[in-house]
Amino acid sequence: MSTSAKSATQIAASLTYNEAGLIPAIAQQYDSDQVLMMAWMNEDAVIETLTNDRVCYWSRSRSKLWRKGETSGHIQKLIELRIDCDRDTLLLLVDQRGPACHTNRQNCFFEAVRDDEVEVIADPLQTETPSAND
Amino acid sequence: MSTSAKSATQIAASLTYNEAGLIPAIAQQYDSDQVLMMAWMNEDAVIETLTNDRVCYWSRSRSKLWRKGETSGHIQKLIELRIDCDRDTLLLLVDQRGPACHTNRQNCFFEAVRDDEVEVIADPLQTETPSAND
Repeated sequence: MSTSAKSATQIAASLTYNEAGLIPAIAQQYDSDQVLMMAWMNEDAVIETLTNDRVCYWSRSRSKLWRKGETSGHIQKLIELRIDCDRDTLLLLVDQRGPACHTNRQNCFFEAVRDDEVEVIADPLQTETPSAND
Repeated sequence: MSTSAKSATQIAASLTYNEAGLIPAIAQQYDSDQVLMMAWMNEDAVIETLTNDRVCYWSRSRSKLWRKGETSGHIQKLIELRIDCDRDTLLLLVDQRGPACHTNRQNCFFEAVRDDEVEVIADPLQTETPSAND
């Protein structure tokens, strides 16, 4: 399932990154089709994600590789990486362990505009709180 | 279903935009859960989308509001707008008319990394080609 280092390097080099060297990556739960979160990858994160089959982002706030779930255990196993028509956005089909969101919600999109108001539409899954950005 | 101008303006003002004044917006087909595309909105595009219930992006290449489907007819009716935990990414549940992608594919993520190769995994839906970015 995982990609060889050679292919991963070639694929990562074929993508279009923004002026900061980053590409947005949407994570979607592979079986429920729930959109979990959006984060950013640099070229190294793309290579690591493809070769390890575990999602690694680039943390813009910490300016370092962000191995999703490294401390919380809420890892994302990569099922498939897809590339969009402009090669400047990635869609990651993942198998998320535990909540994807640092608020302990299953996904990060828990506010919805309904009836002229912004409503919280999902509750945290657990009581313990993982560290933000993990 | 549509949001009042007053609420739309308040909601748009509550979001976090990047240094270019833009926020990424992921479009997901509301019933099939297929992720269709990712594009960008500025504050005006968010307001217009909420008040009209038709998705309007900001075209970075043309530096103008991009009313999705204006010439192709491949519009996106807004079903619900969701906001992520950092208020810097939007998830749009939409009802897409026709293909979402300018290549006439149903969605933009039609290349997948499989067996060490990038494979095209979807064919165009029709033969006519809409204008790029519409």
